[in-house]
Amino acid sequence: MSTRENALYYAKNNYEAFLSNLESFIRIPSISTSSENVVWVKTAANFVEKLLNSIGVADTKILETNGHPVVFGHYKTDTPNAPTVLVYGHYDVQPPDPLDLWETPPFEPSRREDYLFGRGSSDMKGQIIASLSAVESIIKTGEVPVNIKFIYEGEEEIGSPNLPAFLEKYSKLLESDVVLNPDSGMISPNIPTIVYGLRGLAYFELRINGPDHDLHSGLFGGIVHNPASVLSNLISGMHNSDGVIQLDGYYDDVIELSEIERKELSRLPISDKDLLDQTGVKMLWGEKNYTSIERTGVRPTLDINGILSGFTGEGSKTVIPAWAMAKISMRLVPDQDPEKVHQQLIKYIEKNIPPTVSWDLKKFAGGKASIANTNHPGVIALSKALEEVWHTKPVFKREGGSIPIVGEMQKILGTDSVLTGFGLPNDNIHSPNEKLHLPTWRKGILAIIHFFYNYSGENEN
Amino acid sequence: MSTRENALYYAKNNYEAFLSNLESFIRIPSISTSSENVVWVKTAANFVEKLLNSIGVADTKILETNGHPVVFGHYKTDTPNAPTVLVYGHYDVQPPDPLDLWETPPFEPSRREDYLFGRGSSDMKGQIIASLSAVESIIKTGEVPVNIKFIYEGEEEIGSPNLPAFLEKYSKLLESDVVLNPDSGMISPNIPTIVYGLRGLAYFELRINGPDHDLHSGLFGGIVHNPASVLSNLISGMHNSDGVIQLDGYYDDVIELSEIERKELSRLPISDKDLLDQTGVKMLWGEKNYTSIERTGVRPTLDINGILSGFTGEGSKTVIPAWAMAKISMRLVPDQDPEKVHQQLIKYIEKNIPPTVSWDLKKFAGGKASIANTNHPGVIALSKALEEVWHTKPVFKREGGSIPIVGEMQKILGTDSVLTGFGLPNDNIHSPNEKLHLPTWRKGILAIIHFFYNYSGENEN
Repeated sequence: MSTRENALYYAKNNYEAFLSNLESFIRIPSISTSSENVVWVKTAANFVEKLLNSIGVADTKILETNGHPVVFGHYKTDTPNAPTVLVYGHYDVQPPDPLDLWETPPFEPSRREDYLFGRGSSDMKGQIIASLSAVESIIKTGEVPVNIKFIYEGEEEIGSPNLPAFLEKYSKLLESDVVLNPDSGMISPNIPTIVYGLRGLAYFELRINGPDHDLHSGLFGGIVHNPASVLSNLISGMHNSDGVIQLDGYYDDVIELSEIERKELSRLPISDKDLLDQTGVKMLWGEKNYTSIERTGVRPTLDINGILSGFTGEGSKTVIPAWAMAKISMRLVPDQDPEKVHQQLIKYIEKNIPPTVSWDLKKFAGGKASIANTNHPGVIALSKALEEVWHTKPVFKREGGSIPIVGEMQKILGTDSVLTGFGLPNDNIHSPNEKLHLPTWRKGILAIIHFFYNYSGENEN
Repeated sequence: MSTRENALYYAKNNYEAFLSNLESFIRIPSISTSSENVVWVKTAANFVEKLLNSIGVADTKILETNGHPVVFGHYKTDTPNAPTVLVYGHYDVQPPDPLDLWETPPFEPSRREDYLFGRGSSDMKGQIIASLSAVESIIKTGEVPVNIKFIYEGEEEIGSPNLPAFLEKYSKLLESDVVLNPDSGMISPNIPTIVYGLRGLAYFELRINGPDHDLHSGLFGGIVHNPASVLSNLISGMHNSDGVIQLDGYYDDVIELSEIERKELSRLPISDKDLLDQTGVKMLWGEKNYTSIERTGVRPTLDINGILSGFTGEGSKTVIPAWAMAKISMRLVPDQDPEKVHQQLIKYIEKNIPPTVSWDLKKFAGGKASIANTNHPGVIALSKALEEVWHTKPVFKREGGSIPIVGEMQKILGTDSVLTGFGLPNDNIHSPNEKLHLPTWRKGILAIIHFFYNYSGENEN
């Protein structure tokens, strides 16, 4: 057997052990947004470092940031003139709420038929274990064809606020030829997918303050401007009835689609029927004159992620709420700038807020959109790898989600990322009952093994 | 000393014992809207019955309804041809949320300076204990000048859904000449107040359903109509920018103010400055061409009592919520009908709901507005009683709150209510840190003693 075949053989014989690693990883509730879970986030970082050591990556360290730490690892090959791949991952997860909708506890992995359920199973603890299992298979069976560095952050789900500074500080340590980022997914189990574009993100919390305490709606109804009404008015004005965002200047920096890209995207095998099935909505919605794939990939959005005001318990309580709060986020596309849309939102509020209330806007971390070169040697190596396992050419997709790190790595390190991943659209990531499709995940491990061998070869040519 | 003077003397010497009864009463969390507190609501009913017995009202019973029970009591006087007063009260209270804003626990009464803090201290356990203390003072010191019946319900804070049927069933038992209802309040500690008008209430819960689970806002943002946005649009359209409610036909049955009543109301010593102080808002708000007193007393309202949707915890979570919910209530004035505004709300939603979502409207109990005759012998007796204690004539007020029982008693029993009470506008009823002003409350006990003696005399003349 060739070295590559040895590695593939090793992987196929160790799926159960890999899966057991994933289950242990899921049991750690590393929710980065929750201050109560700081210890668990740290535990997850330690878990990743130990796992690196156990698969044969001895040179590891946990590097502090102003937030959650980064786990770094480095495997130096004996192969001369080998290129360096930087493998990215995030070991943090989304909060599990609403908890009552989970069929099994979010941090207790549960295998049911072809799926493994649990928070992070797909996004992205499953993808981390897939890439580490591929590396393990290569290290344990022969000569490693490339140098491999590892960077695992703990703040992706809160917008990677401390990563730019980290990249600046450790740019030398992180030098590489390409970044392998398995934090995106596949269109369906039979269609391997390479993502070449990602949307950016800007996230805010808006609070409207009215009376200094909840008031009796009988005694004061008619003279106090209800903060929940004021907030609703503001939200209502953010889109027009055609779904177009009404912040002044919001579309100024949006790059319009070329006809060529439009044609390419129209070939993607995702139908509106698929999207209806995945979401359960009665009917799709959005900006006119753009297809669903365009609206989720190349057009910016503004979404309300949450609202809270007044009495929300069982039954009735007749109060005028003292305040109302909304979480508001935008998915950005090239060349929108998170800080610029922040200013646009402030101007919108200033223009529309009535004098009866006061307000406060908090900004959470965000990031720019990114687009990759589809002719990059890393993309070619990955494309071949996916074809070798699935026996079909992968499709190329611009994705609606945001991985700020991709743009930052391009800007700060000068390194391009190749984006893939083995999650599926109905994995319920960020939702209750998140799951991982195990047959696809197993194929993913094999594809990453192929990628490393292909990339070393691609680079020789 | 006369009989009346004996009773007043007894009251003045027993304030501490009365207050201790009130403290025991507050310790019972009789939250009628909460299914978890059913046992406590029952406990409060038993407490009231025992208290009636202990002050000398032997003829009591607890009468079941389809909801929480009613406590009935009857004291028959030996005085020949005496009229009958029916004393009303509700032993249930509002929920205490938001709990974290209470300075001391809501169900642990706390005396601080001139105040007693605790849920129900003002609304209306304090008022119940005031009237029972007055009755006790009369019974224990001499001949009782009137027959007294008592009706204590446990569902006022949820709109008294079962009371109309109860009144129908027990109309014979509840026969009386006048109802004394101490569930309203005073304008300030030095201005005794008689309420002659109350607003009605209609309360709803609207739920907008979008996707069948919370979605990743990156993957699906741009193609799914956000339920929180849809709800905001609906709420936003319910008022125009002048504060006028936009439900078709909403004002059709509203009786406009007469010039005489307008003049009377303008004499009430409540300034906009007072209202700013009581609410803490930057600026008052509401329908143009009506004063603040008119807007809270004689004009109908529509208020959002609560909103909930999506992620509302700390930090950020990038979801498109599966649903959004609002609690919506209206304060009604003569001759609006709760069922008619219910239909108007349904029509408004049907007209404005987009086809992208589904919706559901729940109706909670409501009631019509009511207006009393200010020349009623009961009103005259109460007016004199208040003047005897405060040495100033009471003011007459139409109040913004709702006590559905008043209209129902007029309609079903044919009995008018006289409305007073010894709470103050800054008592924080329905809010955290509810409190009772003890000096005013003590005076209230004396005033009720006077009322009973006055009323028997008024009736003789």
